[in-house]
Amino acid sequence: MPQIYAEFADICEKLEQFYHDMEDVEFTVEQGKLWMLQTRDGKRTARAAVRIAVDMVHEGLITEEEAVMMVDPDQLDQLLHRQFNPEAKPEAVAVGVAASPGAAAGEVVFTSERATEEAQAGNRVVLVRHETSPEDIRGMASSQGILTMLGGKTSHAAVVGRQMGKPCVVGCSAIDIDYGAKQFTINGRVVNEGDYVSIDGTTGEVMLGDVDTVDSDIIQVLRGELEPEQSEDYQYFSEFMPWADKIRKLGVRTNADTPEDSTLARTLGAAGIGLTRTEHMFFGEDRLLNFQKMILSDSEEAMTEAANALLPYQRDDFYGILKAMDNLPVIIRLLDPPLHEFLPKDEAGIKAAAEVSGKTPEQIEELATNLHELNPMLGHRGCRLGVTFPMIYKMQVRAIFEAACQLEKEGYNPVPEVMIPLVGILGELEILRGYAEEVAQEVMDEQDVEFEYMIGTMIEIPRACLVADDIARIADFFSFGTNDLTQMAFGFSRDDVEGKFIPAYIEQRIIAVSPFESIDRDGVGELMRMAVEKGREANPDLELGICGEHGGEPRSVAFCHEIGLDYVSCAPLRVPIARLAAAQAQVENPR
Amino acid sequence: MPQIYAEFADICEKLEQFYHDMEDVEFTVEQGKLWMLQTRDGKRTARAAVRIAVDMVHEGLITEEEAVMMVDPDQLDQLLHRQFNPEAKPEAVAVGVAASPGAAAGEVVFTSERATEEAQAGNRVVLVRHETSPEDIRGMASSQGILTMLGGKTSHAAVVGRQMGKPCVVGCSAIDIDYGAKQFTINGRVVNEGDYVSIDGTTGEVMLGDVDTVDSDIIQVLRGELEPEQSEDYQYFSEFMPWADKIRKLGVRTNADTPEDSTLARTLGAAGIGLTRTEHMFFGEDRLLNFQKMILSDSEEAMTEAANALLPYQRDDFYGILKAMDNLPVIIRLLDPPLHEFLPKDEAGIKAAAEVSGKTPEQIEELATNLHELNPMLGHRGCRLGVTFPMIYKMQVRAIFEAACQLEKEGYNPVPEVMIPLVGILGELEILRGYAEEVAQEVMDEQDVEFEYMIGTMIEIPRACLVADDIARIADFFSFGTNDLTQMAFGFSRDDVEGKFIPAYIEQRIIAVSPFESIDRDGVGELMRMAVEKGREANPDLELGICGEHGGEPRSVAFCHEIGLDYVSCAPLRVPIARLAAAQAQVENPR
Repeated sequence: MPQIYAEFADICEKLEQFYHDMEDVEFTVEQGKLWMLQTRDGKRTARAAVRIAVDMVHEGLITEEEAVMMVDPDQLDQLLHRQFNPEAKPEAVAVGVAASPGAAAGEVVFTSERATEEAQAGNRVVLVRHETSPEDIRGMASSQGILTMLGGKTSHAAVVGRQMGKPCVVGCSAIDIDYGAKQFTINGRVVNEGDYVSIDGTTGEVMLGDVDTVDSDIIQVLRGELEPEQSEDYQYFSEFMPWADKIRKLGVRTNADTPEDSTLARTLGAAGIGLTRTEHMFFGEDRLLNFQKMILSDSEEAMTEAANALLPYQRDDFYGILKAMDNLPVIIRLLDPPLHEFLPKDEAGIKAAAEVSGKTPEQIEELATNLHELNPMLGHRGCRLGVTFPMIYKMQVRAIFEAACQLEKEGYNPVPEVMIPLVGILGELEILRGYAEEVAQEVMDEQDVEFEYMIGTMIEIPRACLVADDIARIADFFSFGTNDLTQMAFGFSRDDVEGKFIPAYIEQRIIAVSPFESIDRDGVGELMRMAVEKGREANPDLELGICGEHGGEPRSVAFCHEIGLDYVSCAPLRVPIARLAAAQAQVENPR
Repeated sequence: MPQIYAEFADICEKLEQFYHDMEDVEFTVEQGKLWMLQTRDGKRTARAAVRIAVDMVHEGLITEEEAVMMVDPDQLDQLLHRQFNPEAKPEAVAVGVAASPGAAAGEVVFTSERATEEAQAGNRVVLVRHETSPEDIRGMASSQGILTMLGGKTSHAAVVGRQMGKPCVVGCSAIDIDYGAKQFTINGRVVNEGDYVSIDGTTGEVMLGDVDTVDSDIIQVLRGELEPEQSEDYQYFSEFMPWADKIRKLGVRTNADTPEDSTLARTLGAAGIGLTRTEHMFFGEDRLLNFQKMILSDSEEAMTEAANALLPYQRDDFYGILKAMDNLPVIIRLLDPPLHEFLPKDEAGIKAAAEVSGKTPEQIEELATNLHELNPMLGHRGCRLGVTFPMIYKMQVRAIFEAACQLEKEGYNPVPEVMIPLVGILGELEILRGYAEEVAQEVMDEQDVEFEYMIGTMIEIPRACLVADDIARIADFFSFGTNDLTQMAFGFSRDDVEGKFIPAYIEQRIIAVSPFESIDRDGVGELMRMAVEKGREANPDLELGICGEHGGEPRSVAFCHEIGLDYVSCAPLRVPIARLAAAQAQVENPR
């Protein structure tokens, strides 16, 4: 029916031109006559969304700005994280509800205890349950992914899975679990505990066997492991993203703790680092023993000496990161977690720490008891450690500035920003800024190099928002730590509440979405708005950003745009998401 | 020298008339001539302060209002708490710095560990140290009082002692401690570990032996154990306090959990109860087993049944308190602490709980593991329990209303106010208010009695202050829980920070006083001010009070007066302090 086909093609063209989108049409041909039954904007994967947008711009159907508005930022995630190797991916044996994106493969386990045991033995597992409940939290955390027979997108498994970043397929009614026999059947096939299963949380697919996963094409190109011409995804992506950058007013930085992550984020479009955490840097073997020796010192002098033994390590860390981010600002956060996190927990560790510190194992256990805290989140950590043990912060600041000097001498242009965490009281920042400035001057004098630096603070304590004007007078920047700010504003310990009652709260419509997923505008957001207003009024040059996980979540990015932050900072793989979300926020709410 | 004496008496009279106070004068007589060298307002004990004020009013020297302004409210504490029996009190062997008021007697111990062991064995101890440090916290908590050789009023022992309410004498340089020999000498006398020592934290006196302590005269009269005419203190006190009541605009209630405390507080001037905690009521033996059975239930039905088994106990509790406070409002807070606090910890307890619940000890331990929280202060507690386990709150509300019905039938006039703790989100209160109203209607229908009641919330989550307008629309009252509000606004876990760095913060002038001692006006106070403004605007009838410990601290009482609260609520013995502080606040800052 060539005539009808031509008529059909013509109508389709008209529809797409009219709706400025890719259409999903229903039609029929009856007795030689074409009937158009329905049309609507077509659903699409991330890959398709970007291609459609770019193609439509090429065809002159839409503008670049319209293209930017057509792609859901959250979808970009699919293009960037690890996925099943398309060549190895078998057909699905069943499809459930795609509840938390990503690819996971592992041995089947049916209980949380077993998941934890297997994970401790170094095995990858997928937890399979009728549904999950708060008792399963630890098992979920130990698993690669979660598969449930019951539940929808707001079920316990789904909510917790997304919050943990674990791939999750729920409501897969094709599976039939027999806990007693330790097996399940899926469309007639029997799967026993210990057999491999693979789940795709992006599509809801369940596959048998241990399916291979690979980095996304785009990441492979950015890492130089694939040529651009070998990846259509990359070609579309790299044409599309600059359109967003032309529109957005909000800067995008990354949270990165290593030179490798810094480089990756830079290729993904990050304009600097919003948060480098320094604590994990102390966990290498030599470093940890030195750190323990420091904690276990008897005198201020011995403690200072032990702290200074860590200086070369830290300097190397910062050197690498500042170099990878040459010419771009790098915010380095001074030590944040409580000291007890660094003490040895097992016998071998205690013995090693005893040797290096000259203490007895009993003394080490006694110190551990003394450092134990009932609510460590609200305890002796962050700048509170800086005040009581100034040698730690002084060593860290010296390491930052010495690394900067070295780079300056080598012709680079490092831009370090020192971030003091957990400030809630003006006096804390006054004292610690004083220490940092002293050290900066010492280093400049010693090395005969001038370098620029900034000293600022993380805004993560509710009180800091209320006295933000005072704090801003002596801070060069604020970076909102919305994870802790949310914990304290709500009185929610994330580790405790996400599994225990957040799903029930969502189900009972007390909240629409977890405040750890998307910024709570009415509460946490009001505190932020207050801090921005007070801070800018007291110090018009104040640099304002966010480094909490919300910095990579589209609705939160829109909020940060609205309240006038200078930048958001997020995990490397979320940088493109933030770039796109920032552009959309500008279109919807120009500033 | 009668002439000089007359001249001296005349000058003293003039001085007192001029300064309107009791004067401390220095003079000399040289070659028959009287020289007045200096005069200043005399220092005085609480007892003297009240007497001087009353006497001066009687003499027409000052007005009642001036008398009210002459007495330091904090001093009244001395007149009310337990003190050494004056007849048994020996001479002091030394005097140190009076750092935290009160009388303490016990066996001497030199280490924190020993203090804890002895206390666990049921013995009273006094901890004697050169000075204390964060490692001594548990030992301090286990002791009756603390005596140190070093330190002043802002030393670790002093700050922590005041915060713990432990009598404390510091800087007692007359003692010389030999930790090795487990003894100290004090002005030549040798005191060994295990010997008794008594310290008076109000005067700084150190006495040998186990000195007897007694209730204050005033309390004895109020309890009917002494006739008013037998106590001059009582006579002066009972003449003085009504002057404060005539002036003040701020109401004063009490925090009381038993009929006895309620009655005592009422005689001390409390106009109702601002906080009755209900959790300790579950700790009687029968009750605890029933409560454990409830937690250990497998089904909602079984849990509801177990909860309802607790109803008669709770009804009796509330009956007694509402009766003691007849005609006065009584705020009862529904269950607040996390469930794991109620689980058995020792073998015998686990065995008993296993029997009553039909579970195995292993299952009980597993539940304890599942309920364990990393930061219990910010976990599954307060109204969050009410949402997830509605049967508990429904049972408690029913107990309150049934007790009220019973009293109504007996001709009393109970005024119950139901307080829902830890609300941070409107939806929490919506759901829980709904449950409470349903139960109220059911009880009224069943008993055919009409009673008045109010339903309100504790404001203790920072977010609640930010959305106070929304919450106020469905709350009859707000009661500021400033202990938790301070913990969350500062990000301070009180148990962890008071011993660990608050003393260092005071020493380094980061803060002037612990925010747990006196309300932090700039941060916590701003949140309160915001909640008052938003709350009153949305609901002009909103009743506003405070039930945190700050409600009995004079500077905080003044702040509550300033922001327009209706009442403060505090421990029974602090009720007179709050009454006086409220009067002084009104004089200084009329409203």
